[in-house]
Amino acid sequence: MSELTHLDSKGSAHMVNVGDKVETRRVAIASGKISMSPAALTAIRAGDAPKGDVLGTARIAGIMAAKRTGELIPLCHPLGLESVSVEFAFEDAAITATAAASLTGKTGVEMEAMVAVTTALLTIYDMGKAIDKGMVIGDVRLMEKRGGKSGTWKASAE
Amino acid sequence: MSELTHLDSKGSAHMVNVGDKVETRRVAIASGKISMSPAALTAIRAGDAPKGDVLGTARIAGIMAAKRTGELIPLCHPLGLESVSVEFAFEDAAITATAAASLTGKTGVEMEAMVAVTTALLTIYDMGKAIDKGMVIGDVRLMEKRGGKSGTWKASAE
Amino acid sequence: MSELTHLDSKGSAHMVNVGDKVETRRVAIASGKISMSPAALTAIRAGDAPKGDVLGTARIAGIMAAKRTGELIPLCHPLGLESVSVEFAFEDAAITATAAASLTGKTGVEMEAMVAVTTALLTIYDMGKAIDKGMVIGDVRLMEKRGGKSGTWKASAE
Amino acid sequence: MSELTHLDSKGSAHMVNVGDKVETRRVAIASGKISMSPAALTAIRAGDAPKGDVLGTARIAGIMAAKRTGELIPLCHPLGLESVSVEFAFEDAAITATAAASLTGKTGVEMEAMVAVTTALLTIYDMGKAIDKGMVIGDVRLMEKRGGKSGTWKASAE
Amino acid sequence: MSELTHLDSKGSAHMVNVGDKVETRRVAIASGKISMSPAALTAIRAGDAPKGDVLGTARIAGIMAAKRTGELIPLCHPLGLESVSVEFAFEDAAITATAAASLTGKTGVEMEAMVAVTTALLTIYDMGKAIDKGMVIGDVRLMEKRGGKSGTWKASAE
Amino acid sequence: MSELTHLDSKGSAHMVNVGDKVETRRVAIASGKISMSPAALTAIRAGDAPKGDVLGTARIAGIMAAKRTGELIPLCHPLGLESVSVEFAFEDAAITATAAASLTGKTGVEMEAMVAVTTALLTIYDMGKAIDKGMVIGDVRLMEKRGGKSGTWKASAE
Repeated sequence: MSELTHLDSKGSAHMVNVGDKVETRRVAIASGKISMSPAALTAIRAGDAPKGDVLGTARIAGIMAAKRTGELIPLCHPLGLESVSVEFAFEDAAITATAAASLTGKTGVEMEAMVAVTTALLTIYDMGKAIDKGMVIGDVRLMEKRGGKSGTWKASAE
Repeated sequence: MSELTHLDSKGSAHMVNVGDKVETRRVAIASGKISMSPAALTAIRAGDAPKGDVLGTARIAGIMAAKRTGELIPLCHPLGLESVSVEFAFEDAAITATAAASLTGKTGVEMEAMVAVTTALLTIYDMGKAIDKGMVIGDVRLMEKRGGKSGTWKASAE
Repeated sequence: MSELTHLDSKGSAHMVNVGDKVETRRVAIASGKISMSPAALTAIRAGDAPKGDVLGTARIAGIMAAKRTGELIPLCHPLGLESVSVEFAFEDAAITATAAASLTGKTGVEMEAMVAVTTALLTIYDMGKAIDKGMVIGDVRLMEKRGGKSGTWKASAE
Repeated sequence: MSELTHLDSKGSAHMVNVGDKVETRRVAIASGKISMSPAALTAIRAGDAPKGDVLGTARIAGIMAAKRTGELIPLCHPLGLESVSVEFAFEDAAITATAAASLTGKTGVEMEAMVAVTTALLTIYDMGKAIDKGMVIGDVRLMEKRGGKSGTWKASAE
Repeated sequence: MSELTHLDSKGSAHMVNVGDKVETRRVAIASGKISMSPAALTAIRAGDAPKGDVLGTARIAGIMAAKRTGELIPLCHPLGLESVSVEFAFEDAAITATAAASLTGKTGVEMEAMVAVTTALLTIYDMGKAIDKGMVIGDVRLMEKRGGKSGTWKASAE
Repeated sequence: MSELTHLDSKGSAHMVNVGDKVETRRVAIASGKISMSPAALTAIRAGDAPKGDVLGTARIAGIMAAKRTGELIPLCHPLGLESVSVEFAFEDAAITATAAASLTGKTGVEMEAMVAVTTALLTIYDMGKAIDKGMVIGDVRLMEKRGGKSGTWKASAE
């Protein structure tokens, strides 16, 4: 039998049965960044100043995608998320995104936080690609999760 | 006025009018990778051997998400994709994914290829996270695009 | 800090955390109307008589959209609705729609009722627009909500 | 036979065959408004000032919903929209929304513009309802459509 | 290499490239039936008489699902359907459904017609299952397809 | 009043109120089959051997569609499925599919299991139709359901 919980004893994919798990408060935080040229970063900063439309749009995209994680990731359970938020920070040649999701339920929200981060970063790519097609999305990772049988997990510092 | 084409003269987000663009054959190729522990890599290789369910599932997830790019990325046009494919390669401590999308139309399919790659990698994360929550998605970038007024673009070698 | 609960202390949109709210029975009723020419009203009445397809189709559209409220309204929580219904009444030069939604949960279903009403009215517009493009949707409002910390609220009579 | 094009000769609903229609440039403009208390209007104005998140969020919601019109309105054709935009204006005790959609195709985009307006207004309702549940959405109508066999149509001035 | 066009030379699933195919008028007709007890058939007939809500609801479900075929069937192309219709007929101990779909495009609409039929039948099952859980859906097949390089195909009479 | 629970006292369709039902563990198992020519069966077996992509793809399609049952079937409640699995077996001139779904909730998961089976079979049809357009889907039925007020139900042996 596989060590991978999403494969059954015959190696077939299935949606793991969480019926016997306990409902606990679950929190997950994920982050990632998009690296870009100074020209793109300047334009996004400028475009963001008056109306907030670049990062505001990326934030909404991340929040909305998080709610649809179960439609995108084949073996994820459909979940009734209780909160989602996405924050951004400007760095020297990059923008970082951090997403937090939470839920009182039988399974964790790691994927929801990961989907929020990647969709927010992809939206920045989309809005900036006319200036810089060479932007790179990276360092997308789970930072922390809390709740559930395995309890708290934090990414090790690099 | 913003240099960012997705913002209008007042800085508001909008879906750019492509009505006057010419229909040409458009192709985009994107790639990315997910780095992981040897244990996770071994388990995915093993889980993949008999039935192909890990990478097979990730591939289907990427293809299906590419078709829904217009639902996920707020200012993307809804497109009638003519082809999508996702390939994987095992590296030392990572799996790389490469996606190609194409279309005969008025706007490019860069975002479709980017969405396919990230969703495929997120699905691998989901299926492997019981073994290694510390997997990191990175190097997600456009490799090449062809067609349209701006013609062919290739990522510069690093 | 904003009075608007959907904006955080920095003014950024987020999905409000309802994790600490109590699960109560929530009900919401919304209504609205579509005004139209006598010719359109007569045709819809006639088209509705034998098979019920105009209002029957609008009713199904409203019910189905209510279930997807969390996909349409960016900061709405995804909810497991326990009931939805949509009723219509013919007036002199208009059709009124009333929708009711309910749920046992941590957050209210006002938006679900509002989405059901507007989608039902938009469907009537779609089916009648070949006869009367000048139809107007109006008076879309929440009539009543029950449950939750703020308890019962009713629209004031005009 | 019904005058309603969405009902066939037996009165059953169907998606009208547009296969023989000519591809022309189609444009539609719709508008509507949401009336509210001075307190709500002030809060939205204030919440909108620093970061644009209220109207920015409503705008994105309208644009994204327009792309999914064919999923929401049962007999609408799925369309490859070429542009969508949503604008807002503050009035004395209301916010007005105007949406424009366009396409080169066999059928019009009236419903896409109507869906964009109503979803944008519903999002404002959602974000302001903690302050004023009595907000009313009204005057939702098609203002103008161009293209297709029936050519240009404009709403009559009131 | 596989005879199956949806598998590439390595046996991996992909969305077949239809970029070089010619746009032709495509039509597909599919049918199927749901067998049931006399009690269920009588109730559906009765429930259908005054308002058409059983078959009317099933028809709308079939039409709406057909438009989303590309979201449901992993390797189907997203298509801009030009028409869809669903008809029903009462038999002795069954209801038959027939769906027709059409499109001017590069690939056929067989799956859209098949999805319309099965979703319509599943909706009848859902609405009747309180009376008869033993209903059986069967004989779901393509009856005819026209257009494309392979031209016209008709199911052989049994 | 209709015997059909999805119609109200006036014969209008509505989503039945399950608010007062008790949360119990619900399980449903459904099955169905697709009959095909020996050539198609051989090709699918062969295509399935090295990489599992035919049945692997069909399985993922069934699991993903089950999660979206509430979007497809108009009067189904949106549910937070706790498990879904789809299994296949090769017969002489057919492939059978069996799906199981479960949930702790107020309403049953019969439709989720039925949707998983039909979508999996439709995906096999899609992947094999280049070889055999005459494949027929049949014997789609509920095999068993457990939980809820009506308790356990099993299909009678034929």
